[in-house]
Amino acid sequence: MSEQDFVSWLRSTVSVADDDIVPLGDDAAVLNWARRDNLVVTSDLLAEGTHFCLAEHGPTRVARKALAVNLSDLAAMGARPVAAVVSLLLPRQGAQLLAEELLRDMALFAQAYSMRIVGGDTNSWSGGLVINVTAFGALTPAGPLRRDGARLGDILLVTGELGGSRLGKHLDFEPRVNEALKLIQHYRLSAGMDISDGLLLDLARLTSASGCGAVLEADAIPISAAASAWGVQSGSGQSALDHALSDGEDFELLLAAPPDEADRLLRDQPLEIPITKIGVCVAEPGLWMDHASHRTPVSPRGFDHLG
Amino acid sequence: MSEQDFVSWLRSTVSVADDDIVPLGDDAAVLNWARRDNLVVTSDLLAEGTHFCLAEHGPTRVARKALAVNLSDLAAMGARPVAAVVSLLLPRQGAQLLAEELLRDMALFAQAYSMRIVGGDTNSWSGGLVINVTAFGALTPAGPLRRDGARLGDILLVTGELGGSRLGKHLDFEPRVNEALKLIQHYRLSAGMDISDGLLLDLARLTSASGCGAVLEADAIPISAAASAWGVQSGSGQSALDHALSDGEDFELLLAAPPDEADRLLRDQPLEIPITKIGVCVAEPGLWMDHASHRTPVSPRGFDHLG
Repeated sequence: MSEQDFVSWLRSTVSVADDDIVPLGDDAAVLNWARRDNLVVTSDLLAEGTHFCLAEHGPTRVARKALAVNLSDLAAMGARPVAAVVSLLLPRQGAQLLAEELLRDMALFAQAYSMRIVGGDTNSWSGGLVINVTAFGALTPAGPLRRDGARLGDILLVTGELGGSRLGKHLDFEPRVNEALKLIQHYRLSAGMDISDGLLLDLARLTSASGCGAVLEADAIPISAAASAWGVQSGSGQSALDHALSDGEDFELLLAAPPDEADRLLRDQPLEIPITKIGVCVAEPGLWMDHASHRTPVSPRGFDHLG
Repeated sequence: MSEQDFVSWLRSTVSVADDDIVPLGDDAAVLNWARRDNLVVTSDLLAEGTHFCLAEHGPTRVARKALAVNLSDLAAMGARPVAAVVSLLLPRQGAQLLAEELLRDMALFAQAYSMRIVGGDTNSWSGGLVINVTAFGALTPAGPLRRDGARLGDILLVTGELGGSRLGKHLDFEPRVNEALKLIQHYRLSAGMDISDGLLLDLARLTSASGCGAVLEADAIPISAAASAWGVQSGSGQSALDHALSDGEDFELLLAAPPDEADRLLRDQPLEIPITKIGVCVAEPGLWMDHASHRTPVSPRGFDHLG
């Protein structure tokens, strides 16, 4: 199959919306943005051996993850997904077939989030599989959910449960797109981001951007069953709580809200997944942990992309 | 340097425009698109060993190429460059330093095209360097320069000279951004694209999309000095013309215009580089070459991304 045939195939696989001005297969995609609000852009690259193992996880789960990590970033900004472009760098052996599988699976998964694949780039080489997805979203009237808006006294909240993602959730997580859109529409949130590199590391980023610190309540952290299981399995001597605090790829939402608004949100529990209060923003920079009425400083730790 | 420090450094290196709603370092970039026309999006991935050799070419030229191939795609759509996001997958050894060099060089090169780097993703691994750039442009009132608009009788034109790009031009070419914007503003073009995979292969794409064929004049093809040199050096038995017809990575513009408009354009020669008439669009699908009043069919050949 030539690149031309491949583009034709792609065009038949990938849904095309009425408002596309230029059909797929030209030098670039043209999106009608006239009726849309501001443009939100995020890009994530996943590499064989670092973010997935193709032989173990299979193309469908890998394709899903490549799109889902970007959807999680759009959710974290409070943006509605619109479109994505996909670059594939494929192992030369079987490149064509793998490209078809990945793109078909991505197109299907994208549809579930009302998002379209509008273009990209496909190459083969002697190395492992690399997938880059750049996703575009539109802000809603609620505006962006920034990470630098947390204020002294704000309550810190998380969706779902944390830790142990490497036992499977890092591939199969549901990006919190609909959850984020529902929350920003109905509640006054000060700040928010997704937890991609571990709660402590991402919380340090949120508080640093906001010019405050945070005190966490150890007993309040929602620990996933996987975090407990991984704590035993890994033999690292780390507790389940340690995993919930520092494992990467939770892809849950970390939020800050003024106390009265947080109370209302916690009472309402408006999502199908739990929202849990885990701490409070304080004036002094840095992170602390309250454990049985004993407060200790904690250092941000998690996944370092260049480590 | 932590990722947080890295983002701070990046923020100080990369120029930030007044209309950014959310500063660099949040989950995603937010661009104010309210005053802009439709959104043009293109994405290109470059890989060590396939598109460049880092040790031989050095980070500055590699960084430049990664951005320039995307600028060429924007030019080919008649779009004005606005912003780009950059994903880096770096060899683990020296990852931080290399990331800084690449991003600094890209930011500088972007500035020359009034384009800003607004975000991206940085990872390291055990493999070679991979760079993905997704670039955003805005259409001008002249609208998009599509590849499917060529009509029977249209004259085919190219900018600059073709072939032998691998002797250096594939790294140092000037993307025809300003040239394309000038041409679409002042001339009625039927179709256009950039020549990235070889004249014949890209011309076949343009004519196929437009539902026509093309006859080329062998004597009219502008052959670069590099194509002649490479024809000798490579020892492949290919003539300089063969190289001009099928070498990849020329990154010149291939255009179609109605005869009267093409005449005016050829007379005016409005660019600092030559524009040359190379052939004409015909009704019958396929490609032909006129050589000393002898017409032969030619098969599209060039760079196959999955070959």
